[in-house]
This record gives sequence, structure tokens and C-alpha cells, in this order.
Amino acid sequence: MASQVSSENWMPENSRLEILQAAAESFEQRGFSATSIDDVARMLGCTKGRIYHHFGSKADLFAAVFRLGMEMNFAAVEPLTHTDASAADKLRMMAEEHVRQMVTTKSFQRVVWEGVELLMRGALTPEQRDECLRLQQSRKRYSALFRAQMKQAKADGALHYDDLSVATQVLFTCLNSPVFWYRPRIADLRKDQDAVIEQVVRFGLNGLGLKEG
Amino acid sequence: MASQVSSENWMPENSRLEILQAAAESFEQRGFSATSIDDVARMLGCTKGRIYHHFGSKADLFAAVFRLGMEMNFAAVEPLTHTDASAADKLRMMAEEHVRQMVTTKSFQRVVWEGVELLMRGALTPEQRDECLRLQQSRKRYSALFRAQMKQAKADGALHYDDLSVATQVLFTCLNSPVFWYRPRIADLRKDQDAVIEQVVRFGLNGLGLKEG
Repeated sequence: MASQVSSENWMPENSRLEILQAAAESFEQRGFSATSIDDVARMLGCTKGRIYHHFGSKADLFAAVFRLGMEMNFAAVEPLTHTDASAADKLRMMAEEHVRQMVTTKSFQRVVWEGVELLMRGALTPEQRDECLRLQQSRKRYSALFRAQMKQAKADGALHYDDLSVATQVLFTCLNSPVFWYRPRIADLRKDQDAVIEQVVRFGLNGLGLKEG
Repeated sequence: MASQVSSENWMPENSRLEILQAAAESFEQRGFSATSIDDVARMLGCTKGRIYHHFGSKADLFAAVFRLGMEMNFAAVEPLTHTDASAADKLRMMAEEHVRQMVTTKSFQRVVWEGVELLMRGALTPEQRDECLRLQQSRKRYSALFRAQMKQAKADGALHYDDLSVATQVLFTCLNSPVFWYRPRIADLRKDQDAVIEQVVRFGLNGLGLKEG
């Protein structure tokens, strides 16, 4: 059955994901411009050919890491918007899952941050810019999930911020911040992560004027 | 008097500062790696020679912008540590001056942020690394000014954060955040800046568990 040994099938199923993981770590360590496909291949102990089989260019690889980072965030947070809780409680749960993403999928989230920065700086080719704008749109939809709850929680009298745009910017910078400074301690990793997540979420919600429960 | 027309003297006194300002804006727009001395010269409408007269290389120029950014922060914040106010009040005044720096000297502060990122990623030559480590030390001394007041304010019962290191990281990310998103509105610039500063500072101090005054 020739179709079973097509180039799509002779590699392990998780090959693409392995490449994205190694790419995320390479981009996290060196940034987009200083990272080469060679670096990613070296980290995987594979040939460049294996990577080019899945991704046409470094920019494609970067965009795929960015996209997967965003998809993981949506998958973790979006279902919480459909629960019956108050807006303030939804916001707390969403913030917790968001910060958990920053801590547990840090390399991918660092790439999301850098992608947004590259876009703002315009250091991209036209095609890279189009792809990045699509990703930026998806980031806006994600941000809108939080804005909706922030608005409702303020209307409920549970939050006390002034300008919604400023509050959203500062909240996300605060919740995203572990991407820059979190260094996992190997011993009792889950407990360490939980403690960091709890402190960052508390800072963010108190920052928005939520009274401590 | 030949000494009066030495190459140090025939240019206006503010020449060095003008170059640093243009360099800060270029680095802010494009980032360190994508910026060239040509970009800075073009922005100033001068020759590359005028820039090389003051700075040996792009890395020297970047380090000088970083250094001046830090010096401006120290000059604004350090005197406040000697006042008679309570630790919580000192912290509020220091946070206000810090955010004012982020808003009014944004290009320089964006370079300080990028310098720290470059250092963390190790994408530097050995000499650049030495210079950047000195600048990093100065950033640590600056951060220590805030940590001292945070510690005292907690001992006074005025703040309610858990881990000092996590609290410092999140506080600075929050106070620094206008560097990424603040776009000055030209009309009534001062009022616009003051409103942003007030909201960011309130977010940061509430985040640390300070009760609203």
C-alpha cells in the first residue's frame, strides 16, 4: 500500500510537535533573528531536512509556534467563559488558567510575546506581516474574553479600575510576567508553580481593585 | 586658541545627547539587531562620522542609551528614599516617579528592557556582556531601593504580599508596562500622562495589597 508510506506517514506522529517544542525553546533562548533552523535541528539531533519537511522557512516555524501558543491559551481559558459563576469569579478562574499557561508552556508564550513585539516594530516581510496580523487578531479575540468579564465585574461593583484599555494592558503585562522571570524549581514543581500562579493572580486582581475574598 | 576648536569643541554641546535621543528612538522602533548606525544618522540628518566621533560602535551607543536611561531613573527616584515619609508613602512616590520615567523617557526605557533581555539570552559578545553586566548591576541597585521600602511597608503591616522576589518582579513588570503600550495623545499631553501614571501606580500598589487611601 504505497499511500501508507507517503512522506506524511513514515515519521512518528509526534514529530511535528517535537519540532515545535524544540523551536519554541530555541526562539526563547536566542530570539527570532538570532535563531537558525540549524539550532533547532541541533537541539533535536536531527537533520535540517526533517524540519523543512514540515515547515517551509524559519518564519513559518515561528508562526506555527505562535499559533500553537495561542491555541493552548484559548483551549484553557475559553470554556470558563461559559460557566455560571459571577464575572469576578470567572475572571479569577480565567486569570489562573492564563498564568498556568505562562508557567507550564513558557517557551511558547515567550514566542507569542516576541511575535507581537516584532509586529509592532514592523521588522517583518509582507507575508510574515500578514500571517502575524492574523495571529494578532486571534490575540485580540482572546483579550476580548477577559475584557468582557472585566466590564461586567465593574458593572457588578466587584472591580474598581478606571479606564478599561489601560486596565487590560496592565493586567495582561502582569499576568504574562512569569514568561520573563519564572525559573522552575525541579523539586516539587507543581507546588512551586501553584505558589507563583496564586501570587501573580492575586496581584493582578487586587490591582484591578477586587477586594480579597 | 587652537584648543577651542579641537574636535571635541566644534560641535554643539548637546550633540552627544541629540545622538542618544535619536539612537533611543531607532532602537525602540527596530530593536538592537535590526538597527544600524546609518538609521541613527538618517534620523539626525547627519553623517555616520559625527556619530562615530562620539561612539565607537553600535554596541557602545546601545550601552550609552541604556546607561542614561538608568541614570535618569536613579535621579528621579533615589532622592525620595531619604524623605521622612512612611515606607508605604515612599513606595507610592517612588512608583509614581518611576512610571513617569517610563512615560516621558519611553524610548530610553525600552532600550533598558531590551538590554536586560539580550543579556538574559546571551546574544552578546564578551565585551558587550561585561558592559551589560555592569548595567545589570546598576539595575539591581535600583530595584533594591524599591525592595527595601516593600520589606519595611510589609513589616509596618501596610502591604500584604507573600514572596518578596515574586512581588518585586510583578511590580516592576506592571510599572514598566507603559513602555510597551503607551501612545501619547498630543492634546493635553500632561493630563494624559498623569491619568496613565495614576492608574498604573494604583494597580501596582493595590496588587501589593495596599489598601486604597
